[in-house]
Amino acid sequence: MSRYLLTIKYDGSNYCGWQVQPNGVSVQYIIQTALKELLNDNSVCVTGCSRTDAGVHANMFCLHFDSDTTIPEEKIPFALNVRLPLDIKAIECKRVADDFHARYSSKGKTYIYRILNSPLPDPFKSKYSLQIAKPIDINLMNVACKKFVGTHDFAAFCSVGSSVVDTVRTVYACSADRNGDDIFISITANGFLYNMVRIIVGTLLEVDSGKILVEDIDNIITSKDRNCAGHTVKPHGLFLERVHYNEMDIC
Amino acid sequence: MSRYLLTIKYDGSNYCGWQVQPNGVSVQYIIQTALKELLNDNSVCVTGCSRTDAGVHANMFCLHFDSDTTIPEEKIPFALNVRLPLDIKAIECKRVADDFHARYSSKGKTYIYRILNSPLPDPFKSKYSLQIAKPIDINLMNVACKKFVGTHDFAAFCSVGSSVVDTVRTVYACSADRNGDDIFISITANGFLYNMVRIIVGTLLEVDSGKILVEDIDNIITSKDRNCAGHTVKPHGLFLERVHYNEMDIC
Repeated sequence: MSRYLLTIKYDGSNYCGWQVQPNGVSVQYIIQTALKELLNDNSVCVTGCSRTDAGVHANMFCLHFDSDTTIPEEKIPFALNVRLPLDIKAIECKRVADDFHARYSSKGKTYIYRILNSPLPDPFKSKYSLQIAKPIDINLMNVACKKFVGTHDFAAFCSVGSSVVDTVRTVYACSADRNGDDIFISITANGFLYNMVRIIVGTLLEVDSGKILVEDIDNIITSKDRNCAGHTVKPHGLFLERVHYNEMDIC
Repeated sequence: MSRYLLTIKYDGSNYCGWQVQPNGVSVQYIIQTALKELLNDNSVCVTGCSRTDAGVHANMFCLHFDSDTTIPEEKIPFALNVRLPLDIKAIECKRVADDFHARYSSKGKTYIYRILNSPLPDPFKSKYSLQIAKPIDINLMNVACKKFVGTHDFAAFCSVGSSVVDTVRTVYACSADRNGDDIFISITANGFLYNMVRIIVGTLLEVDSGKILVEDIDNIITSKDRNCAGHTVKPHGLFLERVHYNEMDIC
């Protein structure tokens, strides 16, 4: 048995998220089914780097599985892709150490949230960005972004219903970039709480609209109270952009 | 009664093209239905700048209609967009002269055909570009592109079944650009025959693969024989990029 690290990319629009759910088709189910067929092994089980929510996309999502296949690792993505739908595709596959774990070996992840900052919608971006008509002050947003960098208890930025006990996370980078009408909010952290990125983005948008002051962010963090932070923005603008397995990648 | 020029943008994946068809939902039907409702006038009829095929997209598509509405022209896109699906959106509306015609007043159009030149597919590009695994020689393709520029009888680049009598068109520009794995083939002409862009792109790809020689293109044009040109590439990589109503726009 060898352990393999598979990197995939997916448009999450049509899925109930990564994890297998009783109702709805998950990305995990699709990948697992294709791997079982390809490897001719019904016992194959895949472990993902994180649970992404329904509607969230991934430019890079990693998972591991064990197999005694004789298919060369570099051939696996191609062989798998013919068995995968157009909106989920394998990018890379490599053998890793037996103790490698897609989730626990990760040193951090980068998420990007996309906003279309235009009074007019765009048919090609509607499934991949949140449309905000009013012009966003990107400089103000970046001042607010800096408040999240560092090691904090992010309990105020975690949706209720999460079973996580330790809510302390380290945000390595948080910034907003504009390219024409497109705004990209990028957050890199050693880990993320349930809906953390979507609540941070909701808070940044409320700073922009004046509902929350930049100076209030420190107090919102120390409050550890979900009710003090901004709203949870919709999932369709969110992309898991990168999974970092090397500390060097993050800084 | 005033005449209005409406500019729209659409993802053609789910439509049978612009024109109303007996089977399948067309973009024209969707726009006309939304306009009838908005203007509260069941007689509204829209005339498009061209017929785009099933699956073809438009970053800019123009149409005209007549109405005695009191809604200010600049408000029409916003009022229309709430009645339109996510994949068809109005961008601009302005009053034009009574003799303006979306199709006949056009001085030319620019189409772009997108190719993903990578051995690996991309879930975010699968509906918007043709994937070609083998590396494309962009310099060779540009040499071939130049052969199409000028006034020619493009009968060899017109699908059979077209009722057009005059097959002479002037191509103002034809070029291929690469941005990483993405290739954009751009063609501007005073008019296009049925499937002309898709057959030119098919021919360019056969030049790249060595099936057709660059030196053969002149002969293919003069043959006026559809069988001499390359294959018709799939519609999903094709975008109507711009409709030119001003001669100055073209050169």
